[in-house]
Amino acid sequence: MFEQLTILAPGLLGGSVARAAHARKIAKRVVIWARRPEVREQLRSQPWCSQVTETPEEAVRTASLVVLAAPVEKIVDLARQIAPALPAGALVTDVGSVKGQLTRACAAAMPACATFVGSHPMAGSQKTGWENSTETLFDGRTCFVTPLTETPATAIESISAFWRALGSTIARVTPDEHDEIVAHISHLPQSIATTLCSFLAQRNPGWRDLAGGGLRDTTRIASSDATMWIEIFQQNREELLRALRDFQTELEGFQAALANREWNELHKRLTRGKTYRDGFKI
Amino acid sequence: MFEQLTILAPGLLGGSVARAAHARKIAKRVVIWARRPEVREQLRSQPWCSQVTETPEEAVRTASLVVLAAPVEKIVDLARQIAPALPAGALVTDVGSVKGQLTRACAAAMPACATFVGSHPMAGSQKTGWENSTETLFDGRTCFVTPLTETPATAIESISAFWRALGSTIARVTPDEHDEIVAHISHLPQSIATTLCSFLAQRNPGWRDLAGGGLRDTTRIASSDATMWIEIFQQNREELLRALRDFQTELEGFQAALANREWNELHKRLTRGKTYRDGFKI
Repeated sequence: MFEQLTILAPGLLGGSVARAAHARKIAKRVVIWARRPEVREQLRSQPWCSQVTETPEEAVRTASLVVLAAPVEKIVDLARQIAPALPAGALVTDVGSVKGQLTRACAAAMPACATFVGSHPMAGSQKTGWENSTETLFDGRTCFVTPLTETPATAIESISAFWRALGSTIARVTPDEHDEIVAHISHLPQSIATTLCSFLAQRNPGWRDLAGGGLRDTTRIASSDATMWIEIFQQNREELLRALRDFQTELEGFQAALANREWNELHKRLTRGKTYRDGFKI
Repeated sequence: MFEQLTILAPGLLGGSVARAAHARKIAKRVVIWARRPEVREQLRSQPWCSQVTETPEEAVRTASLVVLAAPVEKIVDLARQIAPALPAGALVTDVGSVKGQLTRACAAAMPACATFVGSHPMAGSQKTGWENSTETLFDGRTCFVTPLTETPATAIESISAFWRALGSTIARVTPDEHDEIVAHISHLPQSIATTLCSFLAQRNPGWRDLAGGGLRDTTRIASSDATMWIEIFQQNREELLRALRDFQTELEGFQAALANREWNELHKRLTRGKTYRDGFKI
């Protein structure tokens, strides 16, 4: 158990960390700072929030564990801002969807007495904001933990134990491996779902009403928040470009097989895809 | 109500037509022919089946309405085979996923005394076979009805009333319009889901276990039967090639915007996709 868990700038994920940590008694105190005064006011009356501070520095001054829950492009600045106020032995983590440069910059910003270990819980929703947070958001989901070579083993273990206590399964990878993996299993599917919807919207939006469940499922994530995704695309641009290029090559191969009536080749691709999809656990 | 509904070569769709027609009292008799003797034997004991015949010709000899439920590439041959046995006034339809050439060939195969009107219920499942059929499969789903210019209005209305009685909403379009529409809202999503899975299987299949709900939903239909899809791709090859080419162009535009850091352009695409997806009725 941590003496004091501090959450900075909570949205859906940060709010869910606070609720889950309170419900599972993972921290004696949950201290929160939020950027907007009206949100600070609302948070003060939440049963899972012990204290709300006016500045991030105040919130971390006696923290055992700090979670940077700001939007992904604001996390490094926030790490630099709180660095001078961190107490000896403090652990710092985040919930950002991209990890490479972010992890290195946050680790470099830490004072000698504190340690940064990057995290990325694979949990979320089309809905955003702390108002939509739930104490069960991390149950049974993967949480990436992305230490650097020089990160102390004890710090990695503490952060991993924290996410496990919130209900997650840990996937420990390097920050760059993380960005390559999520480019493929999250940012590429988002790009494809968005592009399919953007294409059909221009082709003939009325056809949507004739579709079966296949189109509906294939495009569900296209309903996600556009601004949030722009930030992720900005941060993981190079890895996503590589994944998109390789996916395009695979799609061109499919197209060529269809154009040339290579039915065996198409059957091989359908079967490879089916085998992969049938391997999903749920 | 029809005196005799005949279903030839029932699988998931044909079996569901028989069950639904029996449950809703749409036909006095449901007569079935199946290709395999062991299936004929099993069907004999089903409460929704009045009679099973040894040949398709026998099954249609006193039919008011015939449903050709064979795989899409076998439908035209079956229409030709039963044509000489059809009684005066018989209506014939099918459940094939592709309609252009098929509709024209089936209509041309009819004797003067019978009328063909093509149908395509947008209902199905990853599961196949009459054993998985249900009487509610068509409830609330779209059913395409695809008459030719020369198809009599009374025949179109009878076939439409039949599918409405089974629970469907009718979309009446020409056979060629049908093929263009399903290339976009069904065959293209299938090609994309298959290709995404086929790509990730080669990239790193283990990443699947780290994925969130987004990848799972985006790829669900990749679990469908490969052989069934090859037949659909063969029949609707040209329309699907056009849809794939136009989708590729849209994806290249997305990729270029990301490569050139055109964040406003990307935001526009994400928003257009979101607006389209948010318009789904469920």
